[in-house]
Amino acid sequence: MSILVVGSVALDTVETPFGRVENALGGAATYFSTAASLYTNVKLVAVVGDDFPEEHVEFLRGRGVDLTGLQRRHGQTFHWAGRYEYDNLNNAQTLDTQLGLFAEFDPVLPEDYRDAECLFLANIDPVLQLKVLEQVRRPKLKVLDSMNFWISSNKPKLTEVISKVDVVLMNEGEALQYAETFSLVTAARTILALGPKVVLAKKGEYGAALFADRTYFFSPAYPLEVVKDPTGAGDTFAAGFLGYLDRAGEYSLSAMKRAVVHGSTVASFTIEDYSVDRLRTLTMDEIEQRADHFRHFTDADGEPIFEALQVSSLAGN
Amino acid sequence: MSILVVGSVALDTVETPFGRVENALGGAATYFSTAASLYTNVKLVAVVGDDFPEEHVEFLRGRGVDLTGLQRRHGQTFHWAGRYEYDNLNNAQTLDTQLGLFAEFDPVLPEDYRDAECLFLANIDPVLQLKVLEQVRRPKLKVLDSMNFWISSNKPKLTEVISKVDVVLMNEGEALQYAETFSLVTAARTILALGPKVVLAKKGEYGAALFADRTYFFSPAYPLEVVKDPTGAGDTFAAGFLGYLDRAGEYSLSAMKRAVVHGSTVASFTIEDYSVDRLRTLTMDEIEQRADHFRHFTDADGEPIFEALQVSSLAGN
Repeated sequence: MSILVVGSVALDTVETPFGRVENALGGAATYFSTAASLYTNVKLVAVVGDDFPEEHVEFLRGRGVDLTGLQRRHGQTFHWAGRYEYDNLNNAQTLDTQLGLFAEFDPVLPEDYRDAECLFLANIDPVLQLKVLEQVRRPKLKVLDSMNFWISSNKPKLTEVISKVDVVLMNEGEALQYAETFSLVTAARTILALGPKVVLAKKGEYGAALFADRTYFFSPAYPLEVVKDPTGAGDTFAAGFLGYLDRAGEYSLSAMKRAVVHGSTVASFTIEDYSVDRLRTLTMDEIEQRADHFRHFTDADGEPIFEALQVSSLAGN
Repeated sequence: MSILVVGSVALDTVETPFGRVENALGGAATYFSTAASLYTNVKLVAVVGDDFPEEHVEFLRGRGVDLTGLQRRHGQTFHWAGRYEYDNLNNAQTLDTQLGLFAEFDPVLPEDYRDAECLFLANIDPVLQLKVLEQVRRPKLKVLDSMNFWISSNKPKLTEVISKVDVVLMNEGEALQYAETFSLVTAARTILALGPKVVLAKKGEYGAALFADRTYFFSPAYPLEVVKDPTGAGDTFAAGFLGYLDRAGEYSLSAMKRAVVHGSTVASFTIEDYSVDRLRTLTMDEIEQRADHFRHFTDADGEPIFEALQVSSLAGN
């Protein structure tokens, strides 16, 4: 069992109302790999330059991530700088993007990557996503992420990729933008009509919704009191989702619902600290425990008492 | 069993991206009474003027709402005009407010109102809410709603009322504003520390969250494809919540969780049409059926197939 992920490995400068990090380890494929490696084998395809600290490579290798597909070239690593405002932690404001080597990124899959069971096409140019799809043999699950930039700049190509994957993962606002509607149900219907079996809409602090034929499932976000840095929440949501499914070797809608809860859980840990720092020490025990809390959050018929980590002392101070 | 509600009965002019109604039956106490009358006996305290159409009085009477406390006086009924934009259906933009007789509203409870089991203090001046609290004998459940205007203009008095009720019901943004925080968990903690046993945060299209000591419960909103008019969603959420509890005669946290699902359900019907129009024909069977759907939405371990009214044909067109 393994997941192939293609996307960005980056150095991020992030400001939040709670602090700032400079040139921290970032990028969608980094967040995804770091989190998914808790569940299963991860094969990474990405590019970094000679400014990319060796310690980050060692960190990923130390987590068992297969780096055969990590291209190390002469030039600059992808840099992203963003800021989150107090009243809109769901949406980063991009301050600066320096594509560097990522501008000419050509995702070539090492031979033994082509048989990965699961494929995660992180948010990159749909032209490159198509190129990856052409190289894989027969993955059991193909999941696509995208963003507003590609919806605006190359919707036809993005539509082509969407028609070839099993699961489309998008932020709520991006799904609405793609379908040109203000109803998420309508947006899901539009995207499902193109071929995918499942649409997963990420709503940030409001949770995530899964749409499929005659199926609707909703997972709230974990009620956190302390959020330090929302960067990577979406990518690690994808990691918990795909990691759970790949580890279970099961891709049914039932499994996907449980996988959504894992996605929400992993994302909730990610945002408790900067960069991938919280994931460095995160254990599967912690994930399982928090995932179990989610059942209590939404079970109208169960016992209401819930000893959550942060909610437990709600009325106690 | 009965619920006493004190609040506005109004004539609303509402614009949404889907249409417009003029001088339609509105007001928090109207929405609440109309919906809660499906569950239990409702006793209404409000004021209307001589411009208030007799047919609206007959409508409420026809639903069994006790109108002994409805003051009919010489002057103008409370008028509200608001608009909802396509991209922000959760928040009305107020275009005009004419308080009319509501400016001098003095909520005097008829003698037999004082023994109501449940009390809903709809969004009015906290000074008046306190006045009502002084007149009731020993209600088993006291629920308060408020809004940004009172938080800004009379926070000390609002705080006094909060300290005297069992459940505080607020929009998410208002709870954050009240507690001067950007964390809803922190806001809930702040409000619970003042005395209430439960904080219920309404998140519009994102559902509702219940906070209590060691308890967190979340109910998503019903996934609607067609929303005509969000007005009254919050008041009918309160009606489903309180109506369920009063009818059950049970006020435990377990009962409250099921009551939150009823609140979300009733609110979801309300916004399917203008004014109270959808509620005119709504039946308890329809409510029970949709409330049952909510269990499927959030049950990660159950069967995923869900024959929702509007989601059923998701991939079918």
